[in-house]
Amino acid sequence: MNKKKTLKIVKIGGNVIDNPKALYSFLKTLSSIQGPKILVHGGGKSATALAEQTGMEVKMIEGRRVTDAATLELITMVYAGKINKTMVAQLQAFKCNAIGFTGADGNTISAEKRPVSSIDYGFVGDVNAVDTAILKPLLAHSVTPVFCAITHDNKGQLLNTNADTIASELAIAFAKEFQVELYYCFEKKGVLKDVNDHNSVIQTITKSTYEKLLDAQLIFSGMLPKLNNCFHALEHHVSKVCIGTPEMLLDSKAVFTTLTIK
Amino acid sequence: MNKKKTLKIVKIGGNVIDNPKALYSFLKTLSSIQGPKILVHGGGKSATALAEQTGMEVKMIEGRRVTDAATLELITMVYAGKINKTMVAQLQAFKCNAIGFTGADGNTISAEKRPVSSIDYGFVGDVNAVDTAILKPLLAHSVTPVFCAITHDNKGQLLNTNADTIASELAIAFAKEFQVELYYCFEKKGVLKDVNDHNSVIQTITKSTYEKLLDAQLIFSGMLPKLNNCFHALEHHVSKVCIGTPEMLLDSKAVFTTLTIK
Repeated sequence: MNKKKTLKIVKIGGNVIDNPKALYSFLKTLSSIQGPKILVHGGGKSATALAEQTGMEVKMIEGRRVTDAATLELITMVYAGKINKTMVAQLQAFKCNAIGFTGADGNTISAEKRPVSSIDYGFVGDVNAVDTAILKPLLAHSVTPVFCAITHDNKGQLLNTNADTIASELAIAFAKEFQVELYYCFEKKGVLKDVNDHNSVIQTITKSTYEKLLDAQLIFSGMLPKLNNCFHALEHHVSKVCIGTPEMLLDSKAVFTTLTIK
Repeated sequence: MNKKKTLKIVKIGGNVIDNPKALYSFLKTLSSIQGPKILVHGGGKSATALAEQTGMEVKMIEGRRVTDAATLELITMVYAGKINKTMVAQLQAFKCNAIGFTGADGNTISAEKRPVSSIDYGFVGDVNAVDTAILKPLLAHSVTPVFCAITHDNKGQLLNTNADTIASELAIAFAKEFQVELYYCFEKKGVLKDVNDHNSVIQTITKSTYEKLLDAQLIFSGMLPKLNNCFHALEHHVSKVCIGTPEMLLDSKAVFTTLTIK
Protein backbone atom coordinates (compact mmCIF):
# COMPACT_ATOMS: atom_id res chain seq x y z
CA MET A 1 0.00 0.00 0.00
CA ASN A 2 1.29 3.45 -0.83
CA LYS A 3 1.85 5.76 2.05
CA LYS A 4 -0.73 8.53 1.92
CA LYS A 5 0.48 12.09 1.36
CA THR A 6 -0.03 14.47 4.30
CA LEU A 7 -2.61 17.26 3.96
CA LYS A 8 -2.60 19.98 6.60
CA ILE A 9 -5.90 21.75 7.25
CA VAL A 10 -5.43 24.88 9.33
CA LYS A 11 -8.27 26.80 10.90
CA ILE A 12 -7.52 30.31 12.08
CA GLY A 13 -9.90 32.22 14.27
CA GLY A 14 -10.32 34.43 17.24
CA ASN A 15 -8.20 37.48 17.82
CA VAL A 16 -5.60 36.52 15.23
CA ILE A 17 -7.95 37.67 12.46
CA ASP A 18 -8.62 41.03 14.10
CA ASN A 19 -4.94 41.75 14.74
CA PRO A 20 -3.18 42.76 11.48
CA LYS A 21 0.32 42.01 12.82
CA ALA A 22 -0.65 38.58 14.18
CA LEU A 23 -2.49 37.80 10.94
CA TYR A 24 0.50 38.82 8.79
CA SER A 25 2.78 36.64 10.88
CA PHE A 26 0.34 33.71 10.74
CA LEU A 27 0.00 33.93 6.94
CA LYS A 28 3.79 34.06 6.61
CA THR A 29 4.07 30.92 8.74
CA LEU A 30 1.34 29.18 6.73
CA SER A 31 3.06 30.06 3.44
CA SER A 32 6.28 28.44 4.60
CA ILE A 33 4.58 25.07 5.21
CA GLN A 34 5.52 22.66 2.44
CA GLY A 35 3.04 20.28 0.84
CA PRO A 36 -0.71 20.46 0.33
CA LYS A 37 -2.63 22.64 2.76
CA ILE A 38 -6.05 24.25 3.18
CA LEU A 39 -6.83 27.32 5.27
CA VAL A 40 -10.20 27.87 6.94
CA HIS A 41 -10.93 31.18 8.61
CA GLY A 42 -13.53 32.50 10.95
CA GLY A 43 -14.98 35.98 10.88
CA GLY A 44 -13.42 37.94 13.69
CA LYS A 45 -15.10 41.08 14.90
CA SER A 46 -15.31 42.94 11.56
CA ALA A 47 -18.86 41.75 10.89
CA THR A 48 -20.10 43.14 14.21
CA ALA A 49 -18.21 46.40 13.60
CA LEU A 50 -19.78 46.84 10.15
CA ALA A 51 -23.21 45.97 11.54
CA GLU A 52 -22.82 48.75 14.08
CA GLN A 53 -21.59 51.17 11.40
CA THR A 54 -24.64 50.52 9.23
CA GLY A 55 -27.00 50.65 12.22
CA MET A 56 -27.92 46.99 11.85
CA GLU A 57 -29.32 45.23 14.88
CA VAL A 58 -27.27 42.18 15.96
CA LYS A 59 -29.59 39.47 17.22
CA MET A 60 -28.16 36.90 19.59
CA ILE A 61 -29.98 33.92 21.07
CA GLU A 62 -28.15 32.02 23.80
CA GLY A 63 -24.87 33.62 22.75
CA ARG A 64 -25.29 32.72 19.08
CA ARG A 65 -25.76 35.18 16.27
CA VAL A 66 -29.09 34.92 14.45
CA THR A 67 -28.51 35.14 10.70
CA ASP A 68 -31.38 37.04 9.12
CA ALA A 69 -31.17 38.06 5.42
CA ALA A 70 -29.41 41.35 6.17
CA THR A 71 -26.89 39.64 8.47
CA LEU A 72 -26.18 36.98 5.85
CA GLU A 73 -25.49 39.69 3.28
CA LEU A 74 -23.21 41.43 5.74
CA ILE A 75 -21.19 38.35 6.66
CA THR A 76 -20.93 37.40 2.98
CA MET A 77 -19.36 40.81 2.37
CA VAL A 78 -17.05 40.61 5.37
CA TYR A 79 -16.06 36.92 5.37
CA ALA A 80 -16.01 36.10 1.61
CA GLY A 81 -15.07 39.63 0.52
CA LYS A 82 -12.93 41.62 2.91
CA ILE A 83 -11.28 38.97 5.11
CA ASN A 84 -10.95 36.21 2.51
CA LYS A 85 -9.56 38.35 -0.30
CA THR A 86 -7.19 40.28 1.95
CA MET A 87 -5.76 36.94 3.10
CA VAL A 88 -5.55 35.59 -0.46
CA ALA A 89 -3.67 38.70 -1.66
CA GLN A 90 -1.28 38.50 1.30
CA LEU A 91 -0.64 34.79 0.70
CA GLN A 92 0.16 35.57 -2.95
CA ALA A 93 2.72 38.11 -1.76
CA PHE A 94 4.30 35.25 0.23
CA LYS A 95 4.32 33.13 -2.98
CA CYS A 96 1.59 30.85 -1.67
CA ASN A 97 -0.86 30.40 -4.55
CA ALA A 98 -4.20 30.76 -2.75
CA ILE A 99 -7.78 30.71 -4.05
CA GLY A 100 -10.65 31.88 -1.85
CA PHE A 101 -13.69 29.65 -1.43
CA THR A 102 -17.13 29.60 0.04
CA GLY A 103 -18.88 26.24 0.01
CA ALA A 104 -20.77 27.47 -3.07
CA ASP A 105 -17.56 27.84 -5.08
CA GLY A 106 -16.93 24.61 -6.94
CA ASN A 107 -19.95 23.22 -5.05
CA THR A 108 -17.43 22.22 -2.41
CA ILE A 109 -19.63 22.33 0.71
CA SER A 110 -23.39 21.82 0.57
CA ALA A 111 -25.48 22.47 3.63
CA GLU A 112 -29.05 22.43 4.78
CA LYS A 113 -30.75 25.35 6.45
CA ARG A 114 -31.08 24.43 10.10
CA PRO A 115 -34.71 23.47 10.76
CA VAL A 116 -36.65 25.88 12.96
CA SER A 117 -37.36 24.27 16.34
CA SER A 118 -37.75 26.37 19.47
CA ILE A 119 -35.14 28.76 18.04
CA ASP A 120 -34.96 30.08 14.48
CA TYR A 121 -31.28 30.74 13.76
CA GLY A 122 -32.15 32.01 10.27
CA PHE A 123 -29.77 31.36 7.39
CA VAL A 124 -27.52 28.94 9.26
CA GLY A 125 -26.42 25.82 7.43
CA ASP A 126 -25.56 22.36 8.73
CA VAL A 127 -23.08 20.66 6.38
CA ASN A 128 -24.43 17.65 4.53
CA ALA A 129 -21.83 17.08 1.80
CA VAL A 130 -18.25 17.98 0.95
CA ASP A 131 -17.21 17.54 -2.68
CA THR A 132 -13.45 17.36 -3.17
CA ALA A 133 -13.60 16.83 -6.97
CA ILE A 134 -12.35 20.34 -7.78
CA LEU A 135 -10.15 20.73 -4.72
CA LYS A 136 -8.00 17.68 -5.49
CA PRO A 137 -6.63 18.92 -8.84
CA LEU A 138 -6.07 22.35 -7.28
CA LEU A 139 -4.05 20.84 -4.43
CA ALA A 140 -2.11 18.87 -7.05
CA HIS A 141 -1.33 22.21 -8.74
CA SER A 142 0.05 23.50 -5.39
CA VAL A 143 -2.94 25.76 -4.84
CA THR A 144 -3.97 26.52 -1.25
CA PRO A 145 -7.77 26.80 -0.97
CA VAL A 146 -8.84 29.41 1.61
CA PHE A 147 -12.31 28.75 2.99
CA CYS A 148 -14.53 31.23 4.77
CA ALA A 149 -17.45 30.18 6.95
CA ILE A 150 -20.14 30.26 4.25
CA THR A 151 -21.83 27.32 2.54
CA HIS A 152 -24.80 26.96 0.17
CA ASP A 153 -27.91 24.81 -0.16
CA ASN A 154 -27.63 23.97 -3.90
CA LYS A 155 -30.81 25.96 -4.48
CA GLY A 156 -29.14 29.36 -4.70
CA GLN A 157 -29.09 30.19 -1.00
CA LEU A 158 -25.86 31.02 0.82
CA LEU A 159 -25.74 29.88 4.45
CA ASN A 160 -23.69 30.78 7.52
CA THR A 161 -21.77 27.76 8.85
CA ASN A 162 -19.40 27.51 11.80
CA ALA A 163 -15.76 27.69 10.63
CA ASP A 164 -14.60 24.95 13.06
CA THR A 165 -17.18 22.63 11.52
CA ILE A 166 -16.07 23.52 7.98
CA ALA A 167 -12.49 22.63 8.93
CA SER A 168 -13.45 19.27 10.46
CA GLU A 169 -15.80 18.35 7.60
CA LEU A 170 -13.09 19.16 5.02
CA ALA A 171 -10.64 17.09 7.05
CA ILE A 172 -13.00 14.12 7.11
CA ALA A 173 -13.73 14.39 3.38
CA PHE A 174 -10.01 14.24 2.54
CA ALA A 175 -9.15 11.48 5.06
CA LYS A 176 -9.69 8.69 2.53
CA GLU A 177 -7.05 10.07 0.17
CA PHE A 178 -4.68 11.91 2.48
CA GLN A 179 -3.20 11.56 5.91
CA VAL A 180 -5.01 14.61 7.26
CA GLU A 181 -3.71 16.76 10.08
CA LEU A 182 -6.15 19.31 11.46
CA TYR A 183 -4.86 22.38 13.32
CA TYR A 184 -7.14 24.77 15.19
CA CYS A 185 -5.13 27.96 15.69
CA PHE A 186 -6.16 30.80 17.94
CA GLU A 187 -4.58 33.12 20.50
CA LYS A 188 -4.31 30.54 23.28
CA LYS A 189 -1.67 27.84 23.65
CA GLY A 190 -4.22 25.04 23.73
CA VAL A 191 -6.97 23.66 25.91
CA LEU A 192 -6.42 25.11 29.36
CA LYS A 193 -6.98 23.34 32.67
CA ASP A 194 -7.52 26.74 34.27
CA VAL A 195 -9.08 29.26 31.90
CA ASN A 196 -7.30 32.09 33.74
CA ASP A 197 -3.87 30.48 33.53
CA HIS A 198 -2.50 30.60 29.98
CA ASN A 199 0.23 28.15 30.86
CA SER A 200 -2.09 25.41 32.13
CA VAL A 201 -2.19 23.71 28.71
CA ILE A 202 -3.40 20.13 28.66
CA GLN A 203 -0.90 18.65 26.22
CA THR A 204 -2.77 15.47 25.36
CA ILE A 205 -6.46 14.71 25.50
CA THR A 206 -7.66 11.23 24.61
CA LYS A 207 -11.29 10.29 24.14
CA SER A 208 -11.32 8.74 27.62
CA THR A 209 -9.52 11.58 29.40
CA TYR A 210 -11.90 13.99 27.57
CA GLU A 211 -14.86 12.20 29.10
CA LYS A 212 -13.28 12.44 32.54
CA LEU A 213 -12.61 16.17 32.05
CA LEU A 214 -16.23 16.61 30.98
CA ASP A 215 -17.52 14.74 34.02
CA ALA A 216 -15.35 16.85 36.29
CA GLN A 217 -16.60 20.00 34.44
CA LEU A 218 -12.99 20.98 33.80
CA ILE A 219 -13.56 22.04 30.18
CA PHE A 220 -14.45 25.70 29.63
CA SER A 221 -17.89 25.73 27.99
CA GLY A 222 -16.69 27.82 25.02
CA MET A 223 -14.33 24.98 24.09
CA LEU A 224 -16.99 22.27 24.00
CA PRO A 225 -18.18 22.65 20.37
CA LYS A 226 -14.53 22.86 19.20
CA LEU A 227 -13.57 19.71 21.07
CA ASN A 228 -16.63 17.86 19.84
CA ASN A 229 -15.58 18.78 16.28
CA CYS A 230 -12.08 17.49 16.99
CA PHE A 231 -13.23 14.08 18.23
CA HIS A 232 -15.78 13.86 15.43
CA ALA A 233 -12.86 14.28 12.98
CA LEU A 234 -10.66 11.72 14.79
CA GLU A 235 -13.51 9.22 14.75
CA HIS A 236 -13.69 9.69 10.96
CA HIS A 237 -10.08 8.80 10.08
CA VAL A 238 -8.44 12.20 10.50
CA SER A 239 -4.90 11.34 11.66
CA LYS A 240 -4.10 14.17 14.00
CA VAL A 241 -5.94 17.10 15.61
CA CYS A 242 -4.12 19.91 17.43
CA ILE A 243 -5.27 23.08 19.18
CA GLY A 244 -2.96 26.00 19.94
CA THR A 245 -1.29 29.16 18.68
CA PRO A 246 -0.01 29.36 15.07
CA GLU A 247 3.49 28.67 16.48
CA MET A 248 2.60 24.98 16.74
CA LEU A 249 2.65 24.79 12.91
CA LEU A 250 6.41 25.28 12.69
CA ASP A 251 8.06 25.42 16.08
CA SER A 252 8.89 21.94 17.33
CA LYS A 253 9.22 23.29 20.87
CA ALA A 254 5.79 24.95 20.94
CA VAL A 255 3.35 23.83 23.62
CA PHE A 256 -0.14 22.92 22.37
CA THR A 257 -2.92 20.39 22.85
CA THR A 258 -2.95 17.19 20.80
CA LEU A 259 -6.15 15.19 20.67
CA THR A 260 -6.11 11.47 20.05
CA ILE A 261 -8.62 8.65 20.15
CA LYS A 262 -6.52 6.42 22.39
CA MET B 1 -3.67 21.75 -37.22
CA ASN B 2 -6.37 20.99 -34.68
CA LYS B 3 -9.34 23.28 -34.65
CA LYS B 4 -9.26 25.29 -31.43
CA LYS B 5 -12.09 24.81 -28.93
CA THR B 6 -14.36 27.82 -28.44
CA LEU B 7 -14.22 29.70 -25.11
CA LYS B 8 -16.97 32.22 -24.42
CA ILE B 9 -16.09 35.11 -22.12
CA VAL B 10 -19.19 37.00 -21.01
CA LYS B 11 -19.07 40.33 -19.23
CA ILE B 12 -22.23 41.44 -17.48
CA GLY B 13 -22.67 44.96 -16.23
CA GLY B 14 -24.94 47.90 -15.90
CA ASN B 15 -28.50 47.60 -14.75
CA VAL B 16 -28.62 43.81 -15.17
CA ILE B 17 -26.67 43.41 -11.92
CA ASP B 18 -28.95 45.72 -9.96
CA ASN B 19 -32.15 44.06 -11.19
CA PRO B 20 -32.67 40.69 -9.44
CA LYS B 21 -35.10 39.38 -12.10
CA ALA B 22 -32.84 40.36 -15.01
CA LEU B 23 -29.84 38.88 -13.19
CA TYR B 24 -31.65 35.60 -12.49
CA SER B 25 -32.66 35.34 -16.12
CA PHE B 26 -29.13 36.19 -17.31
CA LEU B 27 -27.53 33.56 -15.05
CA LYS B 28 -30.06 30.97 -16.27
CA THR B 29 -29.11 31.81 -19.88
CA LEU B 30 -25.40 31.65 -19.07
CA SER B 31 -25.82 28.24 -17.38
CA SER B 32 -27.43 26.82 -20.49
CA ILE B 33 -24.43 27.69 -22.67
CA GLN B 34 -22.48 24.54 -23.45
CA GLY B 35 -18.70 24.40 -23.45
CA PRO B 36 -16.07 26.39 -21.58
CA LYS B 37 -17.08 29.85 -20.40
CA ILE B 38 -15.94 32.60 -18.06
CA LEU B 39 -18.15 35.26 -16.50
CA VAL B 40 -16.87 38.73 -15.61
CA HIS B 41 -19.10 41.08 -13.67
CA GLY B 42 -19.11 44.74 -12.84
CA GLY B 43 -20.26 46.25 -9.60
CA GLY B 44 -23.64 47.78 -10.16
CA LYS B 45 -24.93 50.37 -7.74
CA SER B 46 -24.62 48.32 -4.52
CA ALA B 47 -21.24 49.79 -3.66
CA THR B 48 -22.56 53.35 -3.84
CA ALA B 49 -25.63 52.33 -1.80
CA LEU B 50 -23.48 50.77 0.94
CA ALA B 51 -21.16 53.77 0.92
CA GLU B 52 -24.15 56.02 1.58
CA GLN B 53 -25.43 53.69 4.31
CA THR B 54 -22.11 53.79 6.14
CA GLY B 55 -21.78 57.54 5.64
CA MET B 56 -18.74 57.14 3.41
CA GLU B 57 -17.89 59.98 1.07
CA VAL B 58 -17.82 58.95 -2.61
CA LYS B 59 -15.07 60.83 -4.41
CA MET B 60 -15.36 61.23 -8.15
CA ILE B 61 -12.86 62.91 -10.47
CA GLU B 62 -14.01 63.48 -14.05
CA GLY B 63 -16.80 60.96 -13.58
CA ARG B 64 -14.51 58.25 -12.20
CA ARG B 65 -14.60 56.89 -8.69
CA VAL B 66 -11.49 57.53 -6.63
CA THR B 67 -10.52 54.37 -4.77
CA ASP B 68 -9.12 55.31 -1.37
CA ALA B 69 -8.44 52.58 1.22
CA ALA B 70 -11.97 52.68 2.64
CA THR B 71 -13.52 52.54 -0.84
CA LEU B 72 -11.31 49.60 -1.80
CA GLU B 73 -12.44 47.74 1.33
CA LEU B 74 -16.04 48.53 0.48
CA ILE B 75 -15.86 47.37 -3.14
CA THR B 76 -13.98 44.23 -2.07
CA MET B 77 -16.91 43.45 0.21
CA VAL B 78 -19.55 44.25 -2.40
CA TYR B 79 -17.92 42.92 -5.60
CA ALA B 80 -15.96 39.90 -4.30
CA GLY B 81 -18.36 39.15 -1.43
CA LYS B 82 -21.99 40.02 -2.00
CA ILE B 83 -22.32 40.14 -5.80
CA ASN B 84 -19.80 37.44 -6.70
CA LYS B 85 -20.96 34.85 -4.16
CA THR B 86 -24.65 35.47 -4.80
CA MET B 87 -24.00 34.79 -8.50
CA VAL B 88 -21.89 31.70 -7.77
CA ALA B 89 -24.62 30.22 -5.52
CA GLN B 90 -27.28 30.95 -8.15
CA LEU B 91 -25.17 29.39 -10.91
CA GLN B 92 -24.75 26.27 -8.75
CA ALA B 93 -28.54 26.07 -8.45
CA PHE B 94 -28.62 26.04 -12.28
CA LYS B 95 -26.04 23.19 -12.24
CA CYS B 96 -23.29 25.44 -13.55
CA ASN B 97 -20.21 24.69 -11.45
CA ALA B 98 -18.89 28.20 -10.78
CA ILE B 99 -15.93 29.43 -8.73
CA GLY B 100 -15.59 33.10 -7.83
CA PHE B 101 -12.32 34.89 -8.54
CA THR B 102 -10.56 38.14 -7.97
CA GLY B 103 -7.27 38.56 -9.82
CA ALA B 104 -5.52 37.63 -6.55
CA ASP B 105 -7.13 34.18 -6.50
CA GLY B 106 -4.81 31.76 -8.24
CA ASN B 107 -2.66 34.79 -9.07
CA THR B 108 -4.78 35.03 -12.20
CA ILE B 109 -4.59 38.79 -12.85
CA SER B 110 -1.70 40.93 -11.69
CA ALA B 111 -1.89 44.67 -11.95
CA GLU B 112 0.09 47.76 -11.17
CA LYS B 113 -1.24 50.64 -9.11
CA ARG B 114 -1.88 53.45 -11.56
CA PRO B 115 0.90 56.03 -11.21
CA VAL B 116 -0.17 59.36 -9.76
CA SER B 117 -0.02 62.06 -12.44
CA SER B 118 -2.29 65.08 -12.31
CA ILE B 119 -4.97 62.84 -10.78
CA ASP B 120 -4.52 60.27 -8.00
CA TYR B 121 -7.13 57.56 -8.60
CA GLY B 122 -5.95 55.70 -5.50
CA PHE B 123 -6.00 51.90 -5.44
CA VAL B 124 -6.75 51.47 -9.14
CA GLY B 125 -4.84 48.79 -11.00
CA ASP B 126 -3.78 48.56 -14.63
CA VAL B 127 -3.47 44.92 -15.69
CA ASN B 128 0.04 43.77 -16.48
CA ALA B 129 -0.27 39.98 -16.54
CA VAL B 130 -2.91 37.28 -16.83
CA ASP B 131 -1.92 33.79 -15.70
CA THR B 132 -4.15 31.04 -17.08
CA ALA B 133 -2.23 28.15 -15.46
CA ILE B 134 -4.91 27.44 -12.87
CA LEU B 135 -7.87 28.47 -15.02
CA LYS B 136 -7.12 25.96 -17.79
CA PRO B 137 -7.48 22.80 -15.65
CA LEU B 138 -10.60 24.31 -14.08
CA LEU B 139 -12.17 24.92 -17.50
CA ALA B 140 -11.21 21.34 -18.41
CA HIS B 141 -13.16 20.22 -15.31
CA SER B 142 -16.22 22.15 -16.60
CA VAL B 143 -15.81 24.87 -13.99
CA THR B 144 -17.01 28.39 -14.86
CA PRO B 145 -14.73 31.01 -13.29
CA VAL B 146 -16.64 34.13 -12.21
CA PHE B 147 -14.44 37.22 -12.06
CA CYS B 148 -15.18 40.43 -10.22
CA ALA B 149 -13.41 43.69 -10.98
CA ILE B 150 -10.58 43.33 -8.46
CA THR B 151 -6.93 42.51 -9.15
CA HIS B 152 -3.77 42.49 -7.03
CA ASP B 153 -0.20 43.75 -7.25
CA ASN B 154 1.62 40.58 -6.05
CA LYS B 155 2.75 42.51 -3.00
CA GLY B 156 -0.40 41.95 -0.97
CA GLN B 157 -2.40 44.90 -2.26
CA LEU B 158 -5.83 44.43 -3.86
CA LEU B 159 -6.64 46.89 -6.65
CA ASN B 160 -9.81 48.11 -8.36
CA THR B 161 -9.75 47.35 -12.09
CA ASN B 162 -12.35 48.06 -14.75
CA ALA B 163 -14.46 44.95 -15.46
CA ASP B 164 -14.50 45.55 -19.24
CA THR B 165 -10.70 45.54 -19.19
CA ILE B 166 -10.60 42.33 -17.11
CA ALA B 167 -12.84 40.66 -19.70
CA SER B 168 -10.71 41.76 -22.67
CA GLU B 169 -7.42 40.87 -20.95
CA LEU B 170 -8.74 37.39 -20.07
CA ALA B 171 -9.91 37.00 -23.68
CA ILE B 172 -6.49 37.96 -25.03
CA ALA B 173 -4.69 35.62 -22.61
CA PHE B 174 -6.77 32.64 -23.76
CA ALA B 175 -6.64 33.48 -27.48
CA LYS B 176 -3.54 31.36 -28.07
CA GLU B 177 -5.24 28.19 -26.86
CA PHE B 178 -8.91 28.83 -27.60
CA GLN B 179 -11.05 30.44 -30.24
CA VAL B 180 -12.26 33.17 -27.90
CA GLU B 181 -15.59 34.93 -28.24
CA LEU B 182 -16.06 37.98 -26.04
CA TYR B 183 -19.58 39.19 -25.20
CA TYR B 184 -20.26 42.49 -23.46
CA CYS B 185 -23.81 42.23 -22.09
CA PHE B 186 -25.77 45.13 -20.68
CA GLU B 187 -29.28 46.52 -20.86
CA LYS B 188 -28.96 47.97 -24.38
CA LYS B 189 -29.21 46.10 -27.65
CA GLY B 190 -25.78 47.19 -28.81
CA VAL B 191 -23.91 50.30 -29.91
CA LEU B 192 -26.56 52.84 -30.83
CA LYS B 193 -26.38 55.35 -33.65
CA ASP B 194 -28.78 57.57 -31.72
CA VAL B 195 -28.36 57.21 -27.94
CA ASN B 196 -32.05 58.06 -27.47
CA ASP B 197 -33.29 55.46 -29.92
CA HIS B 198 -32.86 51.93 -28.53
CA ASN B 199 -33.54 50.45 -31.93
CA SER B 200 -30.77 52.30 -33.74
CA VAL B 201 -28.30 49.45 -33.21
CA ILE B 202 -25.22 49.49 -35.43
CA GLN B 203 -25.04 45.78 -36.28
CA THR B 204 -21.45 45.67 -37.50
CA ILE B 205 -18.52 47.92 -36.69
CA THR B 206 -15.20 47.34 -38.38
CA LYS B 207 -11.99 49.04 -37.42
CA SER B 208 -12.37 51.40 -40.40
CA THR B 209 -16.06 52.19 -39.87
CA TYR B 210 -15.21 52.73 -36.14
CA GLU B 211 -12.70 55.39 -37.11
CA LYS B 212 -15.28 57.06 -39.34
CA LEU B 213 -17.85 57.00 -36.54
CA LEU B 214 -15.27 58.53 -34.20
CA ASP B 215 -14.42 61.28 -36.69
CA ALA B 216 -18.10 62.05 -37.11
CA GLN B 217 -18.47 62.02 -33.28
CA LEU B 218 -21.28 59.50 -33.64
CA ILE B 219 -20.12 57.32 -30.71
CA PHE B 220 -21.61 58.17 -27.32
CA SER B 221 -18.65 59.06 -25.09
CA GLY B 222 -19.62 56.46 -22.43
CA MET B 223 -19.07 53.74 -25.04
CA LEU B 224 -15.54 54.81 -25.99
CA PRO B 225 -13.54 52.87 -23.34
CA LYS B 226 -15.65 49.76 -24.02
CA LEU B 227 -15.09 49.97 -27.78
CA ASN B 228 -11.38 50.57 -27.32
CA ASN B 229 -11.26 47.40 -25.19
CA CYS B 230 -13.10 45.52 -27.94
CA PHE B 231 -10.69 46.52 -30.70
CA HIS B 232 -7.73 45.91 -28.42
CA ALA B 233 -9.00 42.33 -28.00
CA LEU B 234 -9.62 41.85 -31.73
CA GLU B 235 -6.11 43.10 -32.49
CA HIS B 236 -4.78 40.44 -30.11
CA HIS B 237 -6.32 37.37 -31.76
CA VAL B 238 -9.71 37.31 -30.03
CA SER B 239 -12.04 35.82 -32.67
CA LYS B 240 -15.26 37.66 -32.07
CA VAL B 241 -16.47 40.57 -29.96
CA CYS B 242 -20.16 41.37 -29.50
CA ILE B 243 -22.04 44.03 -27.54
CA GLY B 244 -25.73 43.73 -26.64
CA THR B 245 -28.33 42.35 -24.24
CA PRO B 246 -27.88 38.85 -22.73
CA GLU B 247 -30.38 37.61 -25.38
CA MET B 248 -27.59 37.64 -27.95
CA LEU B 249 -26.01 34.68 -26.13
CA LEU B 250 -28.75 32.26 -27.14
CA ASP B 251 -31.31 33.84 -29.44
CA SER B 252 -30.19 33.58 -33.05
CA LYS B 253 -32.65 36.34 -33.99
CA ALA B 254 -31.38 38.85 -31.41
CA VAL B 255 -30.11 42.18 -32.67
CA PHE B 256 -26.68 43.22 -31.36
CA THR B 257 -23.42 44.82 -32.41
CA THR B 258 -20.59 42.65 -33.76
CA LEU B 259 -17.13 44.17 -33.95
CA THR B 260 -14.60 42.95 -36.47
CA ILE B 261 -11.16 44.05 -37.64
CA LYS B 262 -12.10 44.01 -41.34
